[in-house]
Amino acid sequence: MLTYSFENRGQQSLYEYLYRQIKNDILSGALKSGEKLPSKRALAKNLNVSTITVENSYNQLMAEGYLYSVPKSGFYVSDITSLKPLETLRPERRQKKEIATSDYYADFANNSTLADTFPFATWSKLNRMTMSDYAKELMMRSPSGGILPLRETIADYLYQFRGMLVEPEQIIVGAGTEYLYGIIIQLLGRDKVYAVEDPGYQKITRIYEANNVICVHVPMDKNGVNMNALTATEADILHISPSHHFPTGIITPVSRRYELLSWASQDEQRYIIEDDYDSEFRLTGKPIPSLQSIDSAGKVIYMNTFSKSLSSTIRISYMVLPKALADRYSQELNFYACTVSNFDQYTLYQFIEKGYMEKHINRMRNYYRVQRDNLLNCIRSQKHFNKVKIKEENAGLHFLLEIDTPYSDEELIKRIAKQGIHISCLSQYFHDKKRAKEHTLIINYSGIQPERIENAVTGLFHGVFEG
Amino acid sequence: MLTYSFENRGQQSLYEYLYRQIKNDILSGALKSGEKLPSKRALAKNLNVSTITVENSYNQLMAEGYLYSVPKSGFYVSDITSLKPLETLRPERRQKKEIATSDYYADFANNSTLADTFPFATWSKLNRMTMSDYAKELMMRSPSGGILPLRETIADYLYQFRGMLVEPEQIIVGAGTEYLYGIIIQLLGRDKVYAVEDPGYQKITRIYEANNVICVHVPMDKNGVNMNALTATEADILHISPSHHFPTGIITPVSRRYELLSWASQDEQRYIIEDDYDSEFRLTGKPIPSLQSIDSAGKVIYMNTFSKSLSSTIRISYMVLPKALADRYSQELNFYACTVSNFDQYTLYQFIEKGYMEKHINRMRNYYRVQRDNLLNCIRSQKHFNKVKIKEENAGLHFLLEIDTPYSDEELIKRIAKQGIHISCLSQYFHDKKRAKEHTLIINYSGIQPERIENAVTGLFHGVFEG
Repeated sequence: MLTYSFENRGQQSLYEYLYRQIKNDILSGALKSGEKLPSKRALAKNLNVSTITVENSYNQLMAEGYLYSVPKSGFYVSDITSLKPLETLRPERRQKKEIATSDYYADFANNSTLADTFPFATWSKLNRMTMSDYAKELMMRSPSGGILPLRETIADYLYQFRGMLVEPEQIIVGAGTEYLYGIIIQLLGRDKVYAVEDPGYQKITRIYEANNVICVHVPMDKNGVNMNALTATEADILHISPSHHFPTGIITPVSRRYELLSWASQDEQRYIIEDDYDSEFRLTGKPIPSLQSIDSAGKVIYMNTFSKSLSSTIRISYMVLPKALADRYSQELNFYACTVSNFDQYTLYQFIEKGYMEKHINRMRNYYRVQRDNLLNCIRSQKHFNKVKIKEENAGLHFLLEIDTPYSDEELIKRIAKQGIHISCLSQYFHDKKRAKEHTLIINYSGIQPERIENAVTGLFHGVFEG
Repeated sequence: MLTYSFENRGQQSLYEYLYRQIKNDILSGALKSGEKLPSKRALAKNLNVSTITVENSYNQLMAEGYLYSVPKSGFYVSDITSLKPLETLRPERRQKKEIATSDYYADFANNSTLADTFPFATWSKLNRMTMSDYAKELMMRSPSGGILPLRETIADYLYQFRGMLVEPEQIIVGAGTEYLYGIIIQLLGRDKVYAVEDPGYQKITRIYEANNVICVHVPMDKNGVNMNALTATEADILHISPSHHFPTGIITPVSRRYELLSWASQDEQRYIIEDDYDSEFRLTGKPIPSLQSIDSAGKVIYMNTFSKSLSSTIRISYMVLPKALADRYSQELNFYACTVSNFDQYTLYQFIEKGYMEKHINRMRNYYRVQRDNLLNCIRSQKHFNKVKIKEENAGLHFLLEIDTPYSDEELIKRIAKQGIHISCLSQYFHDKKRAKEHTLIINYSGIQPERIENAVTGLFHGVFEG
């Protein structure tokens, strides 16, 4: 009969201690494969513990595969030849690494936002209100496309700021536009040909490629995607940013917009994905109507994100599906859980509904206008200002700086980096490198600390012309 | 010369009013396609406004495509035959719909958590601390796999509770396991054959199908996925939940685990996705070592979620990639932005790091144990208890109730629904309906209000045996 002393069990429960003793005997070979164990009652009596204690230990050993039971016979030791105990050592407590910060004095290549501009106090307050006012709703599963109040509020917001008439049911909320691109591919199909702008935001190409769909590049002319080039492709789906193209800054005029809609209407398979990512930050004049708002054939999927207007680290984006596609989504993809937590959804809902979003965007628009004007003034006051040309400074959060220089773009980037300044060039965004326009810097200014603008511009010019 | 009266411009700025007047004239045909407009200076003088006002109006009209400029000549009206003004009316303020709540008195088919069990006060406090302590970090882009402090904390947590030794770099944080499945497909390839358990959680099949990958179903035996059936398939990737299978409750013993690892090691392409979704809630005994922790060949992708342990509406899940796959991720998919907001990431990081997670899980384990015991007691006290059999009640947040009844499962569900109770049956989770086991109810108890247990059980039995 098995006998164990319980003297050294320390803090362990009787059951746990017994379980470990038997397990050790199995692992050491003291108990052999196929050997029969005493009945629960017999062992309990022998060890002077309750039957329940033995039962729990046996159950645990069975669950872990060390024992098996044979009905009406008893408990037997399993064949554990392949089984070894976990030999884990508590890992050395890793040194918490410092969060990586940019080593640059100023980063014009980065389009993130500054911490100071985020409305922490309001967001935090609404967060607290959400927790107290929506305790029950927060624990209820969100519909796949997002909670209804948020989608209704976004619909109102789109009407107010973009003149768009959409139903909440057409809106799908997701954790970032990148996630939503993946959903669009699932919705429209992997057998389609997707066209993107050249030059353009390369991440979009990478996402299509990671999803194994065919992705073609269509050259831009001064009004946006070139129509002849587009029709020459086999494209079914066209992915564009007509309100403000990154990085060229091109705003597609209304006439071209109608040409694009006309292209889309020529085939049932065709759709346009309209990425309206920074339309809130058109700094001069009124925004141009979105493609979605002048589309009468249900051919436009409109996308936008709060990552741009609030903070790049808040992952809330949305798309507006044409009604037929919204129906298809609800039939085929509705099983997906919404990727944005209810906490964020309800907080954002209140942020928009209570008017904070409008205020925030107005504040940010002014902030960015001042930021841009300071930058432009600093540029204009440079000794070598006559060798540069500022372009597309009226929209979005970046502009272009054409430079009269003998250096290649690669050399320019290095020379400017030596001044502690990170810069990107237009040429880097071309897929067709033969067409790439050289000597054009992209000045993203959303993440530049205001007090560093002057030094940053001086450093940039020094790097280009004197470094 | 164009002449407009500014008398009726109301609240509009001069520029905006002028822009509208000219636009209306273009739209009405008063200004015709190709017609030349006066120079900015001449029009300004004529209207007695500043040149800037006219310039702004012209720029806006150009940006919208109504005008075009010819260098050294002037401004001309575009061909706008296809262009119509937006005819949008402010939509009727939609009646905010009530948030849908379950119409059932008790819902055993739903595995969501109750609002009362979520640690609101702590979460809210940490949220506030996050906002004040991490203002700068919150605005910095998270690495694709999640912020380092959270991944380090998860690594420690996995060591402590699952005996797993993993590097933070192997951990990828994402907005829900469903999102991570999509990433796994991109990582392992669409040309692979994915195998899932039958019976099993159907959503997994739907995700594979929505991603157009081949998905085969492997029958379970009492120890988990049947090895003969598995080897008979062409499967490259096996997706399982060995710690606690839903809905059968099967715990795969160690011997079978080694067979599974052996299967995986037989081909370079093969991997096992180990979904460990509710391992924290093993109510009896110690958890069984994860497959990941006994895998020495780098063949297991471990997945878990905080949606289960905290709240189904917090969308934070993670996976642990074998080192080679973690490298592949960082080379090929690192461009994806993390889908969980920094706010949630830092809050969760503190929640785990400060020990709240451990406390919460202990509290919930006790809560669920009481919940389960109350349910079992209520069931045992029913008049018709002799006609039912309770199974797999020791793990996870559900158990099975086998019923001796002449009714079909469809009829059972209807009869029970008449009592205001929502139930699901094991048979619904079978892909191969011929193998489906009838007359077995699934009792999910995580979302049942404690005070309703007694009535719910009585109602259920009444529905089955007397209704």
